[in-house]
Amino acid sequence: MKTTYRSIFKWGDKREEKLEKGVVELVKEQFQYTDTDFDKKILYGNKEVRLSQKPKIPVIVRQQFETISGSENVLRDDYSRASHAFGKFYGDLLYLRKGEIATPPDLVITPRSEKEIEQILTLCKQENIAVTPVGGLSSVTRGVETPHGGISLDLTKHLNKILKVNDVNSTVRVEPGVYGPVLEKYLNERGFTCGHFPQSFEYSTVGGWVAARGAGQASTGYGKIEDLVLALRVITPAGIIETKDFPATAEAWDLNKIFIGSEGTLGVITSITLKIRKYQPENRALASFVFKDCQSATQSMRKIMQAGIGFPHLFRLSDPVETTTAFKIKGFDNSLSDKFLEMKGYRQGERCLMFVSIEGNKAYARLVKKKIKRIARKHGSFFIGAKPTKDWLKQRYDSAYMRDPLMDAGIMTDTVETSVTWDNLLNLWTNVRVYLESRERTHVMSHISHVYENGANLYFTFLSPMKQGEEMPDYLDYHHGLMDAILDNGGSL
Amino acid sequence: MKTTYRSIFKWGDKREEKLEKGVVELVKEQFQYTDTDFDKKILYGNKEVRLSQKPKIPVIVRQQFETISGSENVLRDDYSRASHAFGKFYGDLLYLRKGEIATPPDLVITPRSEKEIEQILTLCKQENIAVTPVGGLSSVTRGVETPHGGISLDLTKHLNKILKVNDVNSTVRVEPGVYGPVLEKYLNERGFTCGHFPQSFEYSTVGGWVAARGAGQASTGYGKIEDLVLALRVITPAGIIETKDFPATAEAWDLNKIFIGSEGTLGVITSITLKIRKYQPENRALASFVFKDCQSATQSMRKIMQAGIGFPHLFRLSDPVETTTAFKIKGFDNSLSDKFLEMKGYRQGERCLMFVSIEGNKAYARLVKKKIKRIARKHGSFFIGAKPTKDWLKQRYDSAYMRDPLMDAGIMTDTVETSVTWDNLLNLWTNVRVYLESRERTHVMSHISHVYENGANLYFTFLSPMKQGEEMPDYLDYHHGLMDAILDNGGSL
Repeated sequence: MKTTYRSIFKWGDKREEKLEKGVVELVKEQFQYTDTDFDKKILYGNKEVRLSQKPKIPVIVRQQFETISGSENVLRDDYSRASHAFGKFYGDLLYLRKGEIATPPDLVITPRSEKEIEQILTLCKQENIAVTPVGGLSSVTRGVETPHGGISLDLTKHLNKILKVNDVNSTVRVEPGVYGPVLEKYLNERGFTCGHFPQSFEYSTVGGWVAARGAGQASTGYGKIEDLVLALRVITPAGIIETKDFPATAEAWDLNKIFIGSEGTLGVITSITLKIRKYQPENRALASFVFKDCQSATQSMRKIMQAGIGFPHLFRLSDPVETTTAFKIKGFDNSLSDKFLEMKGYRQGERCLMFVSIEGNKAYARLVKKKIKRIARKHGSFFIGAKPTKDWLKQRYDSAYMRDPLMDAGIMTDTVETSVTWDNLLNLWTNVRVYLESRERTHVMSHISHVYENGANLYFTFLSPMKQGEEMPDYLDYHHGLMDAILDNGGSL
Repeated sequence: MKTTYRSIFKWGDKREEKLEKGVVELVKEQFQYTDTDFDKKILYGNKEVRLSQKPKIPVIVRQQFETISGSENVLRDDYSRASHAFGKFYGDLLYLRKGEIATPPDLVITPRSEKEIEQILTLCKQENIAVTPVGGLSSVTRGVETPHGGISLDLTKHLNKILKVNDVNSTVRVEPGVYGPVLEKYLNERGFTCGHFPQSFEYSTVGGWVAARGAGQASTGYGKIEDLVLALRVITPAGIIETKDFPATAEAWDLNKIFIGSEGTLGVITSITLKIRKYQPENRALASFVFKDCQSATQSMRKIMQAGIGFPHLFRLSDPVETTTAFKIKGFDNSLSDKFLEMKGYRQGERCLMFVSIEGNKAYARLVKKKIKRIARKHGSFFIGAKPTKDWLKQRYDSAYMRDPLMDAGIMTDTVETSVTWDNLLNLWTNVRVYLESRERTHVMSHISHVYENGANLYFTFLSPMKQGEEMPDYLDYHHGLMDAILDNGGSL
């Protein structure tokens, strides 16, 4: 029976339990760790959940919620409240590990229908109670927290149905609480794909994708979530707003766009119509390249995006540290391939790894790949075949699961992203690295994912031993400094 | 010296002066017109402009505007006010022809700088004066009218500069008052295209494109204006809002999208950063097809958009009436080609004409064309080469200029569009045609332009003799019925 803080911040996925051998080696080397350091169980969080705050909502009001949704769908036990207090932001995990939950929701309600949501919102408005709609609780932008307590409205239990696949229009209508893999499997079986694969894919819901306005790993080809949403139905305290699934409209501003990214602040999304695409994995064209340095690699990325040759779906570039780290973790360090690349002038510590995948029609995917190969070659790259990209795709969601066992060993780790125009990319990249590396004993890796005609998204990942006893201020201080470094260098937040 | 109402509703373009021979023939045949009917000069509007309403703004306030922008930029003569009272909506033209201007602006101001706009807005807020920002005044959605009088803020005179082409980011920053052809020529000379070609291209401004949220003829490939805008600077009564030219962001909802389509109601756009693309007209791949009927043609369009083969840039389909009309106007009627098509089973009155243009990289454009040809062939089309599309492109903006000489001959004509999902397209098309054709002596043509994965935009064009003396109620009645027919059949407005 799961009743500990630990059971909240661990998804329960087996990939969270153990670090890959290569990662252990890296940590040992970087931070002079020994095997015993990995048994530290820092802030292990294995105490039973106990909240000091009782629910603030009066019994008479709670009973009204129970009348609306049934008492089995109105939860007020400590564990339910604690498990809805946070998302998966690094700071959230630290709080849970420390057993510190300052503002849990007073109640967790799992409504059974849109009608119930309407009634709940009406009651909350009348009683001045805050409502926070939540899906998979995988948010790293603190969108699911309940700073004013109130209701955490969990849509995953009942509002998780796939309502209709429209083969002709190439759309799917779903309820907000459906998880990514459930939707994708359903669509694949019918010859479609949703094309949206955020890092949180396995534990996030369509409603969360929309509310948090994310981009998936294949967004360079398929678009970000805002490009995929055709229609929404939203329950707001002022009434129901429903947009239609028109392929395009020009009636004043676009109402969809006001709800996409609103993090649940404007209403509760109860139905979403998404574009879907043909699922043709057999047509997928994969390509992997090694470049001599970041300059030539990013230049090549830019040229590819601006060439008028269509776009790859997955387009990813690792910086020299991430590339070296990947080689080490995968055991390619000092392999024949490694030595061969070195000999050819692709030096460790400078070389960058690029992954490309193109989907769609077979001839189309082949042509785009051919054109990309040509541009990449012009920029001095070495083509290393399909396999590295294929391997990367297989473990595409795994890295997120390293966070917990790393934290168990007292290592802080987080990934932060920014979007930046091409003409400012190398400048921002360099300066933000300088900031991140100004911290002692810190391993900083970065990569580009989600590439656009006019710029790209940069991701910075860092690992560093926690300052024990000061884990939170240490992290927040470093994190704020990182935000400042990004803003000072012209990146988006 | 232009001082008549007629000089306002005529652009002064020579294409407005005379109807093509083929159009004259069509009108004669359809409406039993004789040559003398074309000399009717119905509602010719050649009276001198005289406004009965004096400007309502007190002299002392006007003088403050003059202090801000210079007296030469604060216009209050009848002609300036009249020429800023309307856009180019059919009803607007009728009013101008009748010399009826109910609510002209009190003043027309042509500000010289953003600073002046700020000062003007501050003063207007203080004095409770309405402000309507305008560009090329080509709006057909009544966005430039001044129902409360006040200020018509004309941005075309001074705020019309191209500020910066960024070759690396592939963007251009402009002031709102720059006209389409000026921008396009400037970009072409530097190897780029803006890729946005609305029907009003020749007489519309970038600010207007954004405020009215339009789609261009090549939007199927390049995207609509909202897909092209990366950043905006907007002066609002509450302060300046500026978004950055990040290639993407996810900071809550997208502020750009709130101003795009706002028709100037939320503020005055003073700077726009647009995506631009490589200008490679030599790579353009053109294709034209004849289909046996609307069903097979639209089915083919849908399959093309959903095939994962990339998208054509221009993608246009004429219904059987428009196709027949085009054949007639171009003199192909009873030609050898006409007879050949007839013999092959592509019958007049049923056959549909499709135009396709693909831009970008040469091999890419060729491949997309090849794939489109294959899908079109599967749906029974007959490939008729590049020339018809090439010819169409040459006169792509001309049809709008027929409106004035047709009105001179007492013929009402307008084009109305709606977007619709694929599964509802034929239903809506049929029913709206039934409505439009329920009017006596009416020639109804329709076409598809702006095609999406999930549906398409349908355009209905009608020609019909005006009810003389009741031109306005007759038009409004017919037009309202059309709106109802579209809505009742599930189209967007």
